[in-house]
Amino acid sequence: MTGVPRPSTDPEDLLAGARGGDRGALARLVSMVERGGADAAAIARLAHPLAGSASTIGITGAPGAGKSTLTSALVAEIRRAGERVAVLAVDPSSPFSGGAILGDRVRMGEHALDDEVFIRSMATRGHLGGLSLAVPQAVRVLDAVGIPWIVVETVGVGQVEVEVAAEADCTVVVVNPGWGDAVQASKAGLMEIADVFVVNKADRPGADEARSDLERTLSMGHHDRRPPVLCTVATTGDGVAELWQAVRDEVGAALEDGRRAQRRRARDEAELRRVVSARLEERVAAVAAGTPWREAVDAVAARRSDPWTVADELLAELDR
Amino acid sequence: MTGVPRPSTDPEDLLAGARGGDRGALARLVSMVERGGADAAAIARLAHPLAGSASTIGITGAPGAGKSTLTSALVAEIRRAGERVAVLAVDPSSPFSGGAILGDRVRMGEHALDDEVFIRSMATRGHLGGLSLAVPQAVRVLDAVGIPWIVVETVGVGQVEVEVAAEADCTVVVVNPGWGDAVQASKAGLMEIADVFVVNKADRPGADEARSDLERTLSMGHHDRRPPVLCTVATTGDGVAELWQAVRDEVGAALEDGRRAQRRRARDEAELRRVVSARLEERVAAVAAGTPWREAVDAVAARRSDPWTVADELLAELDR
Repeated sequence: MTGVPRPSTDPEDLLAGARGGDRGALARLVSMVERGGADAAAIARLAHPLAGSASTIGITGAPGAGKSTLTSALVAEIRRAGERVAVLAVDPSSPFSGGAILGDRVRMGEHALDDEVFIRSMATRGHLGGLSLAVPQAVRVLDAVGIPWIVVETVGVGQVEVEVAAEADCTVVVVNPGWGDAVQASKAGLMEIADVFVVNKADRPGADEARSDLERTLSMGHHDRRPPVLCTVATTGDGVAELWQAVRDEVGAALEDGRRAQRRRARDEAELRRVVSARLEERVAAVAAGTPWREAVDAVAARRSDPWTVADELLAELDR
Repeated sequence: MTGVPRPSTDPEDLLAGARGGDRGALARLVSMVERGGADAAAIARLAHPLAGSASTIGITGAPGAGKSTLTSALVAEIRRAGERVAVLAVDPSSPFSGGAILGDRVRMGEHALDDEVFIRSMATRGHLGGLSLAVPQAVRVLDAVGIPWIVVETVGVGQVEVEVAAEADCTVVVVNPGWGDAVQASKAGLMEIADVFVVNKADRPGADEARSDLERTLSMGHHDRRPPVLCTVATTGDGVAELWQAVRDEVGAALEDGRRAQRRRARDEAELRRVVSARLEERVAAVAAGTPWREAVDAVAARRSDPWTVADELLAELDR
């Protein structure tokens, strides 16, 4: 094992390396950010002043809507335009399955050999602060490294997952032909976060109906700017150039009319709240490691006390 | 408007009323708990010593798996056994759609006139502590009122939603024929939380394959007790009696071998952490209402500072 240089784990070295084009350094930075803790904070401190130029694209929708295939097709389109791009694919992790077991990542294979495409599957269950803290940290690193387009793909179901997708500069909601999907999208709270709607698998029956149903539903909503509804067939690439154009139009319009700055400020504020919460959680973890904590759990389990009463007692202890 | 008695909002009165069979009082308690805040804490304090007898059944799975129909069929089965039952259906809320806009709740209609069935759709987006705090609070109230079976139905995608389903005494994971579903279940982390698996829509092709695929996958896992895999057709009721039997078997086995007590302690501990976090969040909210907070957000947005640095500055302020 002699002669093999150990890779640096110093955030400053890694960031300098990644900015110089070292993909290994970039991958390590994203892993460190995903793990959270002191390293993640140190990286955020270094990366924040360097970030702010990238545009983020959120891609979300029901499981099976074809989000990964569409993401891959959009990445191909971005590459044709000569731009660098990164993909963060947020998959519910599973210790049993080892995360993304098949399918999604495989389809990204066509970009695997392209040095200007960085693809990362994020599996952050158990991370302190969860996805909602880890994803913006990873985005910041990719941004600071100079990648102009960052695609964040999440499943469009779940409180946290929808929130993460909504925080992009341009959020693309993917549905399929069939009214059922539009209903699911609506129930999951996807109607109000979409900047662009895509009816994917549009070669299937019912695509036109889905499109007009969506347009009708959107016309009843209260959007500052009514999202365009596009049809795509991600597997053949049909409509993907139009999607890329719609994304650029939306990003441009939001930049001009001030919505981008507004949304980013809201995003910064949301992240700050999460960081403050994560810091407080660290204190909770410290409290939870002590004997009074075990006694408090005992009291709740035996119904001698209740969680609200013992929580306040523990916090009074913490403040003393 | 004279002569109409205003309903009480006193937690003690409401709880006494609900325990005496007043459904309106019960509904109000659940609403108060859902809103969070001081009322929710007061209700938890009163309800906790009275709770602990009910068994909870989590029902989860991908969107479209037929969870609501299955829940409704299971409720019919529980009623046939002469037992009271409550359903908490957790739906991602949407200000645009007004929550569950159609479908799911409609199917529960058959139980609407049954006084021994309490059905509630929970829409808790924006709730402090979110679903993971609101659901156990609502369960505690239903338990304290003397309802022996509480079904918690959540969509099986999303960090929080899966966690909520996993905290039941018996968690039922619903999939459909077709390997794709099993893959989705696995990716969403549902394999390891299932106490009982159901292949619903088992009249469709591929049900037997789905069942044996699941059994094979489960045989490779590390379960203390390997979950049974059942086939149901919720729309006709086929297999639902067997599901009810499997749930009772599981609940009984877990009670005997100590897993129920173990899981409940873990649940109590998780809830205590969330209550402590919610209390700390209230402090964060107080901080976030002040001028230093706005200045901190400004500094982050302008990249004069980063969220980790200003978070620590704000917390130092809080401690002073």
